[in-house]
Amino acid sequence: MSDAYNGFGGIMTIVNENYLKLPGSYLFSEIGKRVHKFTEENPDAKIIRLGIGDVTRPLAPAVIEAMHKAVDEMADEKTFRGYGPEQGYSFLIEKIIRFDYESRGINLGVDEVFVSDGSKIDTGNIQEIFGLENKIAVTDPVYPVYIDTNVMAGRTGTMGMDGKWSDITYLPCTAENGFVPVLPEGKVQMIYLCLPNNPTGTTLSKTELKKWVDYAKTNKAIILFDSAYEAYIQEDDVPHSIYEIEGAREVAIEFRSFSKTAGFTGTRCAYTVIPKEVTGYTSAGDSVEVNKLWNRRQTTKFNGVPYIIQRAAEAVYSEAGQAQIKEQINYYMKNAKAIKECLEGLGYKAFGGINAPYIWLKTPDGMDSWSFFDKLLSEYHIVGTPGVGFGPNGEGYFRLTAFASKDSTDEAIKRLTSPISTSY
Amino acid sequence: MSDAYNGFGGIMTIVNENYLKLPGSYLFSEIGKRVHKFTEENPDAKIIRLGIGDVTRPLAPAVIEAMHKAVDEMADEKTFRGYGPEQGYSFLIEKIIRFDYESRGINLGVDEVFVSDGSKIDTGNIQEIFGLENKIAVTDPVYPVYIDTNVMAGRTGTMGMDGKWSDITYLPCTAENGFVPVLPEGKVQMIYLCLPNNPTGTTLSKTELKKWVDYAKTNKAIILFDSAYEAYIQEDDVPHSIYEIEGAREVAIEFRSFSKTAGFTGTRCAYTVIPKEVTGYTSAGDSVEVNKLWNRRQTTKFNGVPYIIQRAAEAVYSEAGQAQIKEQINYYMKNAKAIKECLEGLGYKAFGGINAPYIWLKTPDGMDSWSFFDKLLSEYHIVGTPGVGFGPNGEGYFRLTAFASKDSTDEAIKRLTSPISTSY
Repeated sequence: MSDAYNGFGGIMTIVNENYLKLPGSYLFSEIGKRVHKFTEENPDAKIIRLGIGDVTRPLAPAVIEAMHKAVDEMADEKTFRGYGPEQGYSFLIEKIIRFDYESRGINLGVDEVFVSDGSKIDTGNIQEIFGLENKIAVTDPVYPVYIDTNVMAGRTGTMGMDGKWSDITYLPCTAENGFVPVLPEGKVQMIYLCLPNNPTGTTLSKTELKKWVDYAKTNKAIILFDSAYEAYIQEDDVPHSIYEIEGAREVAIEFRSFSKTAGFTGTRCAYTVIPKEVTGYTSAGDSVEVNKLWNRRQTTKFNGVPYIIQRAAEAVYSEAGQAQIKEQINYYMKNAKAIKECLEGLGYKAFGGINAPYIWLKTPDGMDSWSFFDKLLSEYHIVGTPGVGFGPNGEGYFRLTAFASKDSTDEAIKRLTSPISTSY
Repeated sequence: MSDAYNGFGGIMTIVNENYLKLPGSYLFSEIGKRVHKFTEENPDAKIIRLGIGDVTRPLAPAVIEAMHKAVDEMADEKTFRGYGPEQGYSFLIEKIIRFDYESRGINLGVDEVFVSDGSKIDTGNIQEIFGLENKIAVTDPVYPVYIDTNVMAGRTGTMGMDGKWSDITYLPCTAENGFVPVLPEGKVQMIYLCLPNNPTGTTLSKTELKKWVDYAKTNKAIILFDSAYEAYIQEDDVPHSIYEIEGAREVAIEFRSFSKTAGFTGTRCAYTVIPKEVTGYTSAGDSVEVNKLWNRRQTTKFNGVPYIIQRAAEAVYSEAGQAQIKEQINYYMKNAKAIKECLEGLGYKAFGGINAPYIWLKTPDGMDSWSFFDKLLSEYHIVGTPGVGFGPNGEGYFRLTAFASKDSTDEAIKRLTSPISTSY
């Protein structure tokens, strides 16, 4: 603490100064600003948005039906629901376990699954239950929430000129290493892995993922495994859950979401799995069940997902629901395939798009990410996401998403493959 | 940090050890255990629950109608909604401002209101944006979330034998001082006030509340004003919003909820107001807009309330919705009146119940809170909440809620006023 603090100590409300370390402008707000400026200057331009990872297909009919039914239950005092369990209703948790885990030979207890209102929220909050002295590791590029929430908590140092925080271990994932992160040389304790990856759309094989589980076991580290895009996996050797890897139950927390699986970005439901074996330690070396800490956090700072929304999520697991969400995912993955083939046809190096709804392309001629953003916007009226927004190793890359409508996606492809026009 | 930590430093995942300071059993889980034991031993007993503050009336027809409509919008790609603004949709925020504030002469900007999934969540998270060096003050008894979340963050010391944390200033509210807290002698920075109060059901007059606003202005402190029970206020001199008090815009954050206002405990919607004038400071003494910090927190760690639920909340402000929720509140307040009159008729000292759905009674003959709990459960098969569960100064008190059905409330009153029977 500075002398100035001592001078004022205890006589005014001090803010959490870690917040002031964060760069002012968040990636998507900068994109918003540039798009806004462009549309003001070009009011007739028809912009196609392949930037933010937001779904566009309506909710599945089975989900809609379940919500109408739940709404009616809330209208009748005999079926009305007040506070539910903070961890989620067992009708939903049991379906999650049966369909998402037991079907792959993974057994979980009902008290190992915590229903929540989003994986952004859970991956942001999870760090609270760990000490500030832990070192974190993130892949680079990375979903910004992992880093920002650790900055806010005070687990990072300062940001250097290279865009990296001093107390974070960055694990580069680039075309050069095939987007396979290398185990850190030093010791880290909290390892964030997002697979299938946002933003690169790439995955790890079971063999590669096992290296991380083994590292965590050897080093008593914990893997924070974000698999929000699991439903998009098409290839066989790609693990759907980290618990398919031997030993993962002792070291991994898994985050899953209905946002991309079933179009719930505006409906809000997700869940987090913490097996009882996952162990943290006190500074004295005593072991602590991490599941209990999260349970305490959630019961104290959360009040559960709306009953209606939990019934909506449950309907995803009905026979009709399963077929309908599969159709949605196929719709987006056809877009992904079309975008990727278009880019490759144009001579771009493009990655992802096979087991994830993201296509990660190398910008041409060493162009930086934001210049490519501006070029795509001004010449083709297409919005994407600059790779550098996801971290220093995202510089020179660019993300396109498969979440637009088929018509918009086809139109974007048409623009990219035709001579530049000003009539979009 | 202990020597033991240095020995292990950086080689295993350390938990947030503040969590381990928290007492194991939360109030309502201990109640649950005792009730469970009793019902196992007395399987035929018909228990009446006047314990947990959960509503029982179904949602208002206007709310149900709005939700059905919103569900249908989610079924059509033309009206489907993905991610909304983390801060809430303007259609809801504008209604909140117009109905809850402008009607009382308070002006707010749309960026001063943050829609969320609950006041428990917001009052729990708000401390994150402030430094750990701030001293907190709470009324005693108090809603446990304020304290527990500060313990988790590391803002408190250790719990003493008297049930008090060493770094918290407790402001006793008892029958002796008419439940009017006295300004602290030392300096505090974060002051939690819940008015109308949970658990005591009491309120402060504008004159009394102004003393706190003046204290906060003089001392550059911040008032965290939880008014989840505002809709239950019946008397004239009781402020509905802290912003009715001159100067409060500079020092107060206000929390409001649809949970008790419109029966949303299982539907989940609330909001937090942070005027732009509310100021915190860096340790160097520079001022910081608190609104901006909360905005950063919410955009990073939250993804907004479900679209359907925001439409439900909006419907509370329709003409029909306003009339329907008033009817719900009258229903509960008739229960409150009946319980209070019953207790007073039996010679109890009973407080609250006039501007809040809680009745706070002094246990007879100096009986402690848990003994009274056991007596009420075993003799009358009625569940209430022991006052000591809300803090040391709650010892010797007991909370009953008005949220049960009229039939259950009448039955409870009948039991209390009749000779003890074993046939309930």
